[in-house]
Amino acid sequence: MAHPPLPSQLLTIEYYPRPGVIQFDWGHPASALLPLDAMGRAAAEAIGRHGDNTLLYGAAQGPGPLIELLVRRLNAHEGLALTPEHMLITGGASLAIDQICTLLTRPGDAVLVPVPTYHLAVGILRDHPLDLVPVAGDEKGVSVEALAEAVVALRAEGRRPRMVYVIPTFANPTGATMPTERRQALADLARRENLLVVEDDVYRELCYEGSLPPSIYSYAPDGPVLRFANGGMLYSGGGVPHFAAMVVETFFGLDAYDAHLAHVKASYRARRDALLAALATHLPPGCAWSHPQGGYFLWLRLPPGITASALLPVAEQHGVSFLPGNKFGLGHSFDEYARLSFSMLEPDELAEGARRLGQAMRA
Amino acid sequence: MAHPPLPSQLLTIEYYPRPGVIQFDWGHPASALLPLDAMGRAAAEAIGRHGDNTLLYGAAQGPGPLIELLVRRLNAHEGLALTPEHMLITGGASLAIDQICTLLTRPGDAVLVPVPTYHLAVGILRDHPLDLVPVAGDEKGVSVEALAEAVVALRAEGRRPRMVYVIPTFANPTGATMPTERRQALADLARRENLLVVEDDVYRELCYEGSLPPSIYSYAPDGPVLRFANGGMLYSGGGVPHFAAMVVETFFGLDAYDAHLAHVKASYRARRDALLAALATHLPPGCAWSHPQGGYFLWLRLPPGITASALLPVAEQHGVSFLPGNKFGLGHSFDEYARLSFSMLEPDELAEGARRLGQAMRA
Repeated sequence: MAHPPLPSQLLTIEYYPRPGVIQFDWGHPASALLPLDAMGRAAAEAIGRHGDNTLLYGAAQGPGPLIELLVRRLNAHEGLALTPEHMLITGGASLAIDQICTLLTRPGDAVLVPVPTYHLAVGILRDHPLDLVPVAGDEKGVSVEALAEAVVALRAEGRRPRMVYVIPTFANPTGATMPTERRQALADLARRENLLVVEDDVYRELCYEGSLPPSIYSYAPDGPVLRFANGGMLYSGGGVPHFAAMVVETFFGLDAYDAHLAHVKASYRARRDALLAALATHLPPGCAWSHPQGGYFLWLRLPPGITASALLPVAEQHGVSFLPGNKFGLGHSFDEYARLSFSMLEPDELAEGARRLGQAMRA
Repeated sequence: MAHPPLPSQLLTIEYYPRPGVIQFDWGHPASALLPLDAMGRAAAEAIGRHGDNTLLYGAAQGPGPLIELLVRRLNAHEGLALTPEHMLITGGASLAIDQICTLLTRPGDAVLVPVPTYHLAVGILRDHPLDLVPVAGDEKGVSVEALAEAVVALRAEGRRPRMVYVIPTFANPTGATMPTERRQALADLARRENLLVVEDDVYRELCYEGSLPPSIYSYAPDGPVLRFANGGMLYSGGGVPHFAAMVVETFFGLDAYDAHLAHVKASYRARRDALLAALATHLPPGCAWSHPQGGYFLWLRLPPGITASALLPVAEQHGVSFLPGNKFGLGHSFDEYARLSFSMLEPDELAEGARRLGQAMRA
């Protein structure tokens, strides 16, 4: 995949605003919802409390105090029976995917990717010498039957299915959540066919209503335990985000996390609801959209006869932008879809963005 | 390379002490020399000054303010003409090596590695489907002639030389520094043969006496510019150590770095000198050792008839340990050598360690 060129100016963060455009493009956290004060206190306190242990080479697996805390929390919240050796702290989900490819695949291994999927994860997979296999889903998202058929077809061609990459909860780009029975079926398929499941579950904590199905992992806790703390990079360099991990551990210790989580969930839920209401008000007949139970994303189907690639330049003239569905297809066409992210926009911006989008469709 | 198993207990940092043993094994910074107070202030001030920009997804290339600062500093100190697009902030040298392998090599590419070399870098290279080629040096360390011959031999066999991995300054494990003319010759070889040079120069700032030759990079500033900010992992996840990078930028802004550097250089120089003096006092005839101009490491040649692998268990009985030379050979034997790290030990511990080492050799 050709990545876009770097912007010509030096950035501090990844996001860059475009004056006058309401951008539904970016799936980043809202600046106003970051716990700046508590993180500032946690950073100073982490150094005060753990001293040299915050600044030395971190343990490859991640700092023990943070691992113990997360094991307790996940076991309590999700009814799991994790022990510390199940856990590794990474420098973000993207680095984890990269390391999984480096350490657990061989050149030519096939990776099955239900589409539409997170386009930037595809960029990570493509940096490795892997055989990427898109598998189209159905109206409920990932289809385990289609995955099972793809595995059979690949083996018949002498290809080597090795891994499935899925975002089962509040998926990027669709906002969809994989139902319980599909999670169990995918775990069964993986066990039967000796596949790794990369369960990218980064949005799970951001649930705005109802309850969530168990993780795919919970249906295969006896599966292969990935010991990539033994990989060369972490063994040499230590845990990658060691200082940040120590600060996060201290942040939890301040009892700041649960209050922070409740606050951001309420705010993101209000944003989602504002967008859902505004779409119902402003979009022309023939549109349809997902009702995400959590996360940052909503998947919009355009009216018959309008494609996302044709709509985007018109939308930009109206001061609104989005990511067209084809970005997420790995070769499959999703040109009748657009991804709308609502995390970074205030309710009034979301309403105005939906109004402009409706105007652009009518133009 | 089979990595050793994880220790059974959870760690916070990588290092773990062994009571009663003076460990010359570990090449980590000394805890007592870490700038804890200044880093604590920098962490709080970074959040106060840069706000949400410290906690959002960082720019893939690294934060602009830190890049600008480092460009100015490197140009002033090393007479370079860097511009910001030459620079990328990584999550440590180990992650940089890993990303170079992922993004800039193809399966089967040959990587030339002058030996002895940093054993944990070999672990990183081995996690990728590469053809690792050890090339023995001479009494001055890396031999560019031997590298040139190896390139010719590889091409004759249909193999694909792609990259050279070197630690030119205060090398791990030998402490040796590559002379100017060899640096220039290596840059010429790389240009002529279209090789990437991975110049792992992490110890350069820790120079305890005299002046240093220019970097290998300075002889080939027109070489390929590695734009791996465009790689999938950073493009998706943002700069990996973003929070730590923002704190480091603020640490520089406190004008704390130069004073800190002067302090640690004086302390590490005193440790080096203590070890050199103690070895002269306590080791039996027939030993020889390098006189490192900087860094953390000293390379000890054992007396005729004593191998490092035979000496190590005896040394441990005497309460002292080291890393035997064969760890650094990538298949070549260096069993007459041991690596002694002096960075983590106080002068009196270094003296006692040398005394125990001499006893073990005589036993």
